[in-house]
Amino acid sequence: MFRLETTSKQSSARTGELITTHGAIQTPFFMPIATRGAVKTLSSFDVERLGSPILLSNTYHLWLRPGMDVMRKMSGLHKFMDWGGIILTDSGGFQIFSLEGLRKLSEEGVEFQSHIDGQKLFMSPEDCMDIQRDIGSDICMVLDVCTKLPATKQDLEKALELTERWAKRSKDQFDKTRAGAINPDAQLFGIMQGGTDIELRKKSLEGLMNIGFDGYALGGLSVGEPFEDACRVLEVTESFMPKDSPRYFMGGAKPDEIVEYVKRGIDMFDCVLPTRNARHGSVYRFNHGNLNDPGFFEVVHITNEKYKDSKELLVTEQFSDVDTELSRYTLGYLRHLFSVNEALAMRLATMVNIRFYLELMKRIRNGIEQGSL
Amino acid sequence: MFRLETTSKQSSARTGELITTHGAIQTPFFMPIATRGAVKTLSSFDVERLGSPILLSNTYHLWLRPGMDVMRKMSGLHKFMDWGGIILTDSGGFQIFSLEGLRKLSEEGVEFQSHIDGQKLFMSPEDCMDIQRDIGSDICMVLDVCTKLPATKQDLEKALELTERWAKRSKDQFDKTRAGAINPDAQLFGIMQGGTDIELRKKSLEGLMNIGFDGYALGGLSVGEPFEDACRVLEVTESFMPKDSPRYFMGGAKPDEIVEYVKRGIDMFDCVLPTRNARHGSVYRFNHGNLNDPGFFEVVHITNEKYKDSKELLVTEQFSDVDTELSRYTLGYLRHLFSVNEALAMRLATMVNIRFYLELMKRIRNGIEQGSL
Repeated sequence: MFRLETTSKQSSARTGELITTHGAIQTPFFMPIATRGAVKTLSSFDVERLGSPILLSNTYHLWLRPGMDVMRKMSGLHKFMDWGGIILTDSGGFQIFSLEGLRKLSEEGVEFQSHIDGQKLFMSPEDCMDIQRDIGSDICMVLDVCTKLPATKQDLEKALELTERWAKRSKDQFDKTRAGAINPDAQLFGIMQGGTDIELRKKSLEGLMNIGFDGYALGGLSVGEPFEDACRVLEVTESFMPKDSPRYFMGGAKPDEIVEYVKRGIDMFDCVLPTRNARHGSVYRFNHGNLNDPGFFEVVHITNEKYKDSKELLVTEQFSDVDTELSRYTLGYLRHLFSVNEALAMRLATMVNIRFYLELMKRIRNGIEQGSL
Repeated sequence: MFRLETTSKQSSARTGELITTHGAIQTPFFMPIATRGAVKTLSSFDVERLGSPILLSNTYHLWLRPGMDVMRKMSGLHKFMDWGGIILTDSGGFQIFSLEGLRKLSEEGVEFQSHIDGQKLFMSPEDCMDIQRDIGSDICMVLDVCTKLPATKQDLEKALELTERWAKRSKDQFDKTRAGAINPDAQLFGIMQGGTDIELRKKSLEGLMNIGFDGYALGGLSVGEPFEDACRVLEVTESFMPKDSPRYFMGGAKPDEIVEYVKRGIDMFDCVLPTRNARHGSVYRFNHGNLNDPGFFEVVHITNEKYKDSKELLVTEQFSDVDTELSRYTLGYLRHLFSVNEALAMRLATMVNIRFYLELMKRIRNGIEQGSL
C-alpha cells in the first residue's frame, strides 16, 4: 500500500510511505543491491546498522543458486539471510535478456542457457511469479521483454505488446498463488518499456494500468541513452502515471541524477554504483547541503597516492549506526588496505557509500518536505 | 612484564599474565594474524568484538607497504589501524628467508628482492629494530636466520651462531632506541633456532639467555617436521627455559596440537590456520569439553553439498560479542555465500574460527587452573 504525503510546489517531487508485510518505508528511497542474497561484503546485520529498511535481490540469480528447493526448505529469503526488512526482487528479465545469443524468445516465455554451467533453462512469466512467491518477496516484479537499443519502432512495439500480454499473465498467476504463499500480502509491480519513444511509453503504461498493479516501474532506461533523454521520458510519463502508486526507476543513477529523477516524480531507486564503485576504491561524500547544485557531492578515488598519509577520517558526521565504526579509520588506512588487497577495504568503502546514498535520500525527503526541491 | 600464575601438577602447562603498554593478557593465548595491518576480512572493531586483546602483524610486510614514511606520519600501527590492544610484530625473518634464490646472507644482514616489485632491499638486525620502533609494537621480535631443512649440523650451527650475534646487535639497538620511541616500554623477544637437534636448541637458548630478553620464542618448528619431533624439542627445551619469561611457539598449530604444546610449557601462539582455512570454507567447532581427547573439535567443510539446506546455526553458544550476529545465520546460508563467491562468506567463517581459537585458549586456561590439563 502506498500513501502519498507531500507534493512539491516547484517540481513533481513527492514524499510518501510504502507499506509492506515487512514494515513501512518513506519514499523516495534507495535500495542496496543484494543480488545473490547478500549486499556484497555485508551481512543483514550490517545493512540494518546502515539503516536501510529495504534491499533488492534477484529472481534469476536466486533461482539458479541456491535454487528453489533450498529456498522453499529455508522458508524464503527473509529467513535464509535473516533479514527482517523489506525485500524487492527484480524479475531477472534484464539479466536473461543480457545473455546475448544464449536466449530464445517465444510467446510462452524465454529459453536460455545458464551463465553458470550452460544448462538449458526456460522461464515463463508464470514461473517468474512462482519463484518470487518461493522467495517470499514483499515486492515482486513482472517478467518483461527488454529490447536492445537501437531498435526499430516496430521491434519496440512488438516487444511492448508481448510485455503487456506477459504482464497480464503475471498478474493472473500472482493472484492465483496468493493463498498458501509465505508472503500472501506481497505486492506486484508492472514494468513499463518503450525506450525513449514517448508514444510507446504512454502505450506501455496504459496497458499496465488497465491490468492494475501495486506500483509502476520504468524499465529500459539508464541503458546508455543521454541523461536528458531519460529526463524527457520521465517528465512526459509522469503526467500519465497514477498519483497514488509508487514509481520505480530501474537502473543506475548517480547522486545528482537521483535528485533530478526525484524532481520528475520518481519514488524508488536501485543502483549498483555505490557498491560497485566502492569495490574499485571510489567513495562518495557530501561537499555541501544544497542538492540543487550538482556539486553537492564528490567522489574520492582513494587509491590515489595523495591519500597515503591522510589522517582525514572516512566519515565525520553521524548518519547511521555503523558510523561509530567507520569514523575510526582514516583515508590513509583505507588506501593502504586497497593497496595490499585486503578485503576489508571493499567492505569499509561499501559501507561508506551505502551510508551516503541512504543519507542522500533522507536529505531529498527533507528537501521536499521543506520546499527546497 | 610476565607474571606466572598457576603451574600444572600433571604437565608443564602454566597460566600467567603478560603486561604491556597496551594492556595485560592472560597466558596461554592465541594471536589473530594481521600481517598487513588488518586481520583478513576484519576491522579492528571486529577483533575487539571477538575479544582478542592482541594481534600479530609483520615487520617485513609493513616496511614494504605502507612503508615507514607513512607509518611515522601516522604515529605507528596502533593509530594507523585504530587498534587499542597489544601488537606483536614478527621480524619478517621467516618471510625474507622464504624468498628462495632472491636473498643473500652476510654478517651484516640480509639482501633480498621485494616480492612486490623486485626492488633490491637490505635489512640488518638493527634496521629490523628501527622498523618495529616505528611501528610502535608492544612486543618486538629479533631478526633471526632461518635455515631451510634438511640441513647439515654444521650449517645449522653456523646459522645459529649468526643468529646469536644478530640477537646481541638487536638487543643493543633496541636499548639504544628506547628514548624517543613511540612505545618506549616495548618488549623484545629472542628467537631460538636449532631445528630438531636438542644440543643445538640448548646452545641457541643459552646464547639468548646470556643476552637477556623479555621473552623467548621457538622458531624453526612447524616447518614440516613430524608433530612428535616438535613435542620432543619442546619437552627438552622447556626444562632449560627460564620459568619467569613467556614462551612463544612460532608457527602453525591445529587446535589439538595447541593443547599438547601448552602441556609442554608454551604460553603464546600465532597461527594462520583459523583465518586461512576460513577463507577456504573450513569452520571449526567444539564437539565436547574434554581437551585431553583430540576429538574435542571438528572441522566442518561448509562447501559440502550436504549443508545446502542446513538450518543449523553457525554458532549456538555465546563466547564473544560477535556471536549475536553469527548466531543469526545458518550453515545453509554460509554454504550458499561460498558457492556464489560472496566476500561475506570468508568474513563470517573467519569470525567463527577466530572465535573458536580464542574460546579454545580460554578453555585451556580454565583447564590448567582447574587441574585437568
